[in-house]
Amino acid sequence: MKRFHERGHYDRSVIQDILDAGFHCHVGFVHQGQPFVLPTLYWHDEESIYIHGSAASRMIEASADAPLCITVTHLDALVLTRSAFHHSANYRSVTILGQGRMITDAAECAAQLRLMMERLFPGRWDRLRPVTPQEIKATRVIALPLSEASAKIRTGPPDEDEEDLAWPVWGGVIPLRTTVEAPVPDVTSLLHGIDDAPHCAVNPGTRDA
Amino acid sequence: MKRFHERGHYDRSVIQDILDAGFHCHVGFVHQGQPFVLPTLYWHDEESIYIHGSAASRMIEASADAPLCITVTHLDALVLTRSAFHHSANYRSVTILGQGRMITDAAECAAQLRLMMERLFPGRWDRLRPVTPQEIKATRVIALPLSEASAKIRTGPPDEDEEDLAWPVWGGVIPLRTTVEAPVPDVTSLLHGIDDAPHCAVNPGTRDA
Ligand SMILES: Cc1cc2nc3c(=O)[nH]c(=O)nc-3n(C[C@H](O)[C@H](O)[C@H](O)COP(=O)(O)OP(=O)(O)OC[C@H]3O[C@@H](n4cnc5c(N)ncnc54)[C@H](O)[C@@H]3O)c2cc1C
Ligand SMILES: Cc1cc2nc3c(=O)[nH]c(=O)nc-3n(C[C@H](O)[C@H](O)[C@H](O)COP(=O)(O)OP(=O)(O)OC[C@H]3O[C@@H](n4cnc5c(N)ncnc54)[C@H](O)[C@@H]3O)c2cc1C
Ligand code: HEM
Ligand code: HEM
Repeated sequence: MKRFHERGHYDRSVIQDILDAGFHCHVGFVHQGQPFVLPTLYWHDEESIYIHGSAASRMIEASADAPLCITVTHLDALVLTRSAFHHSANYRSVTILGQGRMITDAAECAAQLRLMMERLFPGRWDRLRPVTPQEIKATRVIALPLSEASAKIRTGPPDEDEEDLAWPVWGGVIPLRTTVEAPVPDVTSLLHGIDDAPHCAVNPGTRDA
Repeated sequence: MKRFHERGHYDRSVIQDILDAGFHCHVGFVHQGQPFVLPTLYWHDEESIYIHGSAASRMIEASADAPLCITVTHLDALVLTRSAFHHSANYRSVTILGQGRMITDAAECAAQLRLMMERLFPGRWDRLRPVTPQEIKATRVIALPLSEASAKIRTGPPDEDEEDLAWPVWGGVIPLRTTVEAPVPDVTSLLHGIDDAPHCAVNPGTRDA
């Protein structure tokens, strides 16, 4: 962390908190010298962060046994100062560097996918039409260890030069919030009168999650 | 676009709409063989997407004259099916590949930073304490052409196998929404009684923005 050293955090608990607060990330890999950044879903435990996709996906293929970066970001606010220069944002982000490992064992893969589902919708997995061996075969999970993770956080009001404070223009923060809205049943749920929509257990981008 | 071809879009207008709806992105670059993905703010015109940062930032340095990827993502909903396998998400995303170009001319750099501000807070730039030559000198803008951009979009209800529909579990979508909340003035604004907080002209992640 070259700049804003005070914004860098490497504590495991800080990193876990940021990962706990979301479920989508951006994964960076290199394919023939070109970096790619693709959005994807994630889940995690104490040791690793995980992503999943098709066995035929380039994102998954390129993520196995290769240098990888996974970044999770929560943008909490825009920060407005009296000078253009000191405008900023409040945020919490984690970047994880390392080598991806493809989970090839079918049982381990299924167990991980179950964890992915349970994290978002506790209790749902066991109520679903059970996964088939072919479905597991078509799917890959990539694990990336959290050993090389760093967090960066900015919070609080504007921070600017004393002598600019008299400038008569508004300063402060404009918060942003991601909310989970009311579930929308599909025609099948409506038809069968199934109205017990699950509750999403992860509240993305909420500061006090 | 290897999979879900129907979800791929290369029209300029589709790409512009997705870029119009946000202001933060993830930039991917390669540093000594390691991909990095960092969150950052962006703005754009018909030709290019732009990011800014310190002249001393590794992100900025590594983005100049090098293969780059900038990705903009709006996660609109989680999509729940009766099988685990067909769960999905509704989203709009753009990835832009290419070579970054550092804007070194001070006037061009200042003009771009003004556009960044004007896009978010129209009229604000001219009311601020004017930027100084030293501030411009400390700042770099990177431009990435939109010529190699692709969009991927998923919308609508669950899509799954006919024979799973009788399974008695809820299916549908759970929408997510990013909202801009009420501005919070800092002590200086409160002290001087300045209460004309600017309106953020970009509504991130809103489908109908
Ligand atoms: C919020 C969100 C969550 C997602 N979650 C998952 C997930 O959990 N698992 C999963 O497998 N996929 C997920 N995706 C889709 C993922 O981003 C990739 O599109 C997908 O994995 C296919 O990757 P690929 O390498 O096979 O792409 P290919 O089909 O090989 O890509 C070909 C070209 O299409 C472009 N492209 C690929 N993906 C995108 C994109 N998302 N946006 C714009 N252009 C693109 C790239 O420029 C690429 O060069 C998610 C997408 C979003 C937006
Ligand atoms: C929502 C958002 C918007 C941002 N907008 C801008 C912007 O417009 N301009 C700008 O210059 N910067 C912006 N940043 C900060 C940006 O992500 C980088 O932290 C910053 O540019 C410094 O980059 P660097 O390459 O000099 O990092 P260095 O200080 O060289 O990084 C050293 C190490 O710290 C880690 N690191 C760096 N950045 C982050 C991070 N964000 N999260 C976790 N770990 C990190 C990396 O692992 C890296 O190896 C924004 C961040 C967020 C979350
Ligand atoms: C809408 C206006 C702007 C916003 C929202 C904004 C936001 C940001 C953010 C979020 C960062 C990252 C800070 C961090 O690492 O935590 C940043 C960095 C930076 N910005 Fe801006 N910015 C704006 C305008 C400007 C302007 C006009 C200039 C120059 C005149 C400028 C110069 C810089 C510089 C030099 C850095 C790097 C700081 C450092 O690492 O030392 N910004 N900006
Ligand atoms: C919480 C549960 C899950 C969610 C929210 C989820 C979400 C997603 C999303 C968003 C995609 C990307 C689709 C696209 O490119 O537009 C995807 C792809 C995929 N998922 Fe899942 N998924 C879940 C569980 C599972 C499970 C349990 C399996 C396997 C048993 C699975 C197998 C796959 C496969 C194979 C793909 C690639 C599809 C393709 O490109 O052909 N998913 N998933």
